[in-house]
Amino acid sequence: MSTVAVVYFSGSGHTHLMAEAVAAGAKKVSETTVEVHRITGEQIVNGRWKDDAMMEKINQADAIIFGSPTYMGGVAAQLKAFIDAASSIWARQGWKNKIAGGFTHSSSPSGDKQGTLLYLVTNAAQHSMIWIGAGEMRQSDGTNRLGSYLGVMGQADIDFTGTKPVEVDPGDLKTSELYGQRIAELTQRFNK
Amino acid sequence: MSTVAVVYFSGSGHTHLMAEAVAAGAKKVSETTVEVHRITGEQIVNGRWKDDAMMEKINQADAIIFGSPTYMGGVAAQLKAFIDAASSIWARQGWKNKIAGGFTHSSSPSGDKQGTLLYLVTNAAQHSMIWIGAGEMRQSDGTNRLGSYLGVMGQADIDFTGTKPVEVDPGDLKTSELYGQRIAELTQRFNK
Amino acid sequence: MSTVAVVYFSGSGHTHLMAEAVAAGAKKVSETTVEVHRITGEQIVNGRWKDDAMMEKINQADAIIFGSPTYMGGVAAQLKAFIDAASSIWARQGWKNKIAGGFTHSSSPSGDKQGTLLYLVTNAAQHSMIWIGAGEMRQSDGTNRLGSYLGVMGQADIDFTGTKPVEVDPGDLKTSELYGQRIAELTQRFNK
Amino acid sequence: MSTVAVVYFSGSGHTHLMAEAVAAGAKKVSETTVEVHRITGEQIVNGRWKDDAMMEKINQADAIIFGSPTYMGGVAAQLKAFIDAASSIWARQGWKNKIAGGFTHSSSPSGDKQGTLLYLVTNAAQHSMIWIGAGEMRQSDGTNRLGSYLGVMGQADIDFTGTKPVEVDPGDLKTSELYGQRIAELTQRFNK
Repeated sequence: MSTVAVVYFSGSGHTHLMAEAVAAGAKKVSETTVEVHRITGEQIVNGRWKDDAMMEKINQADAIIFGSPTYMGGVAAQLKAFIDAASSIWARQGWKNKIAGGFTHSSSPSGDKQGTLLYLVTNAAQHSMIWIGAGEMRQSDGTNRLGSYLGVMGQADIDFTGTKPVEVDPGDLKTSELYGQRIAELTQRFNK
Repeated sequence: MSTVAVVYFSGSGHTHLMAEAVAAGAKKVSETTVEVHRITGEQIVNGRWKDDAMMEKINQADAIIFGSPTYMGGVAAQLKAFIDAASSIWARQGWKNKIAGGFTHSSSPSGDKQGTLLYLVTNAAQHSMIWIGAGEMRQSDGTNRLGSYLGVMGQADIDFTGTKPVEVDPGDLKTSELYGQRIAELTQRFNK
Repeated sequence: MSTVAVVYFSGSGHTHLMAEAVAAGAKKVSETTVEVHRITGEQIVNGRWKDDAMMEKINQADAIIFGSPTYMGGVAAQLKAFIDAASSIWARQGWKNKIAGGFTHSSSPSGDKQGTLLYLVTNAAQHSMIWIGAGEMRQSDGTNRLGSYLGVMGQADIDFTGTKPVEVDPGDLKTSELYGQRIAELTQRFNK
Repeated sequence: MSTVAVVYFSGSGHTHLMAEAVAAGAKKVSETTVEVHRITGEQIVNGRWKDDAMMEKINQADAIIFGSPTYMGGVAAQLKAFIDAASSIWARQGWKNKIAGGFTHSSSPSGDKQGTLLYLVTNAAQHSMIWIGAGEMRQSDGTNRLGSYLGVMGQADIDFTGTKPVEVDPGDLKTSELYGQRIAELTQRFNK
C-alpha cells in the first residue's frame, strides 16, 4: 500500500481542477491511497505557513505532487510559503527518496510555466526526492498538447468578465490524470 | 536625476547587509536618489502582500533591484508575495523599460542561488524591464568570489549557536556595492 | 549610428524565418545597421566553432540577438559551439554593456523553450551584456500569442511528410519583428 | 543485474576525474555493471555527433549519468551535440523510465553550474527518465561542500600557467563517488 499526496494552491480554481484530475489518475492504481491537500492564504500568518496537522499527513506520503498556478513566472507565494515551512523537514531530510512531481497552470501557452516546474524540481532535489516528469509525448488527442516534460502544464484564457465557469482544456486534464496514474504506478514499483 | 529602489526581504539579516551595500554603491553615483524598501511578514495578510504607500514609491523609481535569501532553492515566499502583488502593475506594464537587477544570499557557495536569480530575471522580463547583471569577473580580492553573473550572490555559514553577529563575506559586500554603483550608472546612461 | 547583429543557427528553417523577421524589425529604426550571421555546421571542426571573420564582425556590434531552435530542451549544439568559442571574448569582457536578446523555435507551444531563453540570458550575463526581453503582452492579434517574456518564441507543427513549405505562425513573426525594432530602439537610447 | 552508464565530455580533465569518481561509486554496488563513455570532438562532424556503437551501448543501460564542464553557463557544445543526436531516441521514447543523473565542473564556486544541471534535468524529462539528485547535505568533511542538490558540482581554480596537475577538490570527488553509489543503489531498487 502506498500513499500519494497532492499538495497545491489554487487562486482562480484552474489549478484545483488539475489537482482533482491528478488525484483521479492516481486513484486508478490499486493499493494506492490518494490525499489532496489545498494550501490556503489563511494558513499563512505574518508571511509564514503553518498547519501542523496537514504537514504531518504529507510527511507520511510516499509521493508528493506539488501544484501551483504560475504567477509572475513562478510558483504562487502561497505555495512557496508552504515550501519554505518544509525547510525544517529538509534539515533532517525527512522526505529523502520520496517520489516527487509537479503541475502548473497559467493563461498563456508558455506563460513562463517551465520556470515554475524548474523551481519545483529544484525544491524536490533539495529534499533528495526522486523526480518523475510528465512522461507523455505531444499527441493529436490533446495529451500534452502544450509540450511540457518536467511536469504537466495547463492553460486557459483569462475570463475578464468573470462570468464564465472555470474550465481547463480537456487535453490538459487528461494529461494531468495520466500523470497522477504514472506517479502512483512508479511509486509502487519503487517501493515494492 | 534618477531613482534606484532596493526592494528586499531578509530573514536572518544577511540579505539586509547586502541590500545596504547595494544601496551604498548606488549612492556613490551623482544625481541618484536611493530608496531602500524592506518587505516584512506583517505586510502579508491571508497570503497576500499589501502596502500601497510602499508600492507607490517603488512605482516611481527608474531602477528596481530585487533582493531575497534563497530559501529551498528559490526566492523567499515573502518577497514572492510582494512580486505577486505587483501583477496588477504587470497587467498595465507599469514598470516597462525600468532597469532591473537582483541579489541573493544563502549558507552554501552554490546553494541553488542561481535558480533565485533566474527567477528574478524571469519576473523582470514579464514586466518588460531591462536586466543588468553583476558585471564583474571573479577576482583575487574577493570581488565576485562565488562566480555569479546574473546578479550578486552572498554566502555565510549558518551559525547554529545563534550567538555570532550576522556577517556577510567582505568580498560579497564589495561585489554588492559595485553592483549598486553599476546599476545607478547604467540607469543614468539609459535615461539621459 | 548603431549596429544590431542577429546571430543564429537554424536546422529546419523556422528559426531562419524568425531571424529575418527580427532583422526586418531592427531595420525599421533609423541610424541602425543590421547584420545577420547564420551559424553553420561547417564552421565546427572537431566540436569547436571557428570563423574569425564572422566573430570579428559580431564583436563590433552594439547589440547581439541570439537565435536557436530548441533541441531537447536547450540551444542547438551548433549555436552552443559558437557561444563556447566566444569564451575568449568573455575572458576579456569584450561584449560588456552590449545589448542582448534572444529568440527560439520548436514544434510545441511550450516545448521547454523557456529553458533555451533562460540559458541565453545566463550566457549574456556572463558577458556583462544588458538583456532586453520581448516587451509585448499577449494580444488577440497574435502578438506574443505563446506568452513568452524573456525573449520571443515561435512554434510550428512538425511536417512529418517533409513536403510542406517551412512556415512560422504570422503572430510569432510579427512578435519577432516588434522585438527587432524594440532592441534597435533601446540600443540607440542606451548609446546616444 | 543492472547497468549504469556514465556519459561525459571533458576539456581540461576535471570533469573526467569526476566521471571516474562517479563510476567508482557505482561499482561499489553489487550486481551492477558500470560503463564509462567519453564524448570527443572527433565524433562531431559538421556539428553533428555520431557514434552508433557507443549510442547502442548507452541505449542498453538502466541508468545514464550525464557529465559536462559548465562552459559559458551551460553544458559544453560537445555534450550537447551528443544530446541532440539522441533526439531520434527521444522520438520513440527509448530511454523512458531509465534513471538519470548529472554532474558538472567549473572554475568558480557557483559559476552558473546550476544552470547546467537544470538543463540536464530538462533533457532527462524530455526522455521521460527519472531524475536522482545529489542526495547529500553539505557536511564539514567536504561532502557537497558547494551545496548543490540537482546533481553534483565540482570546482577547481583555473591554472593559468598550465603546469599544475589537473585536480578536483577531494570533497567534490567524494560527493561524486557517493552519487554514483546512490544512483546504482536506486537503480537496483527501481528495477528489482
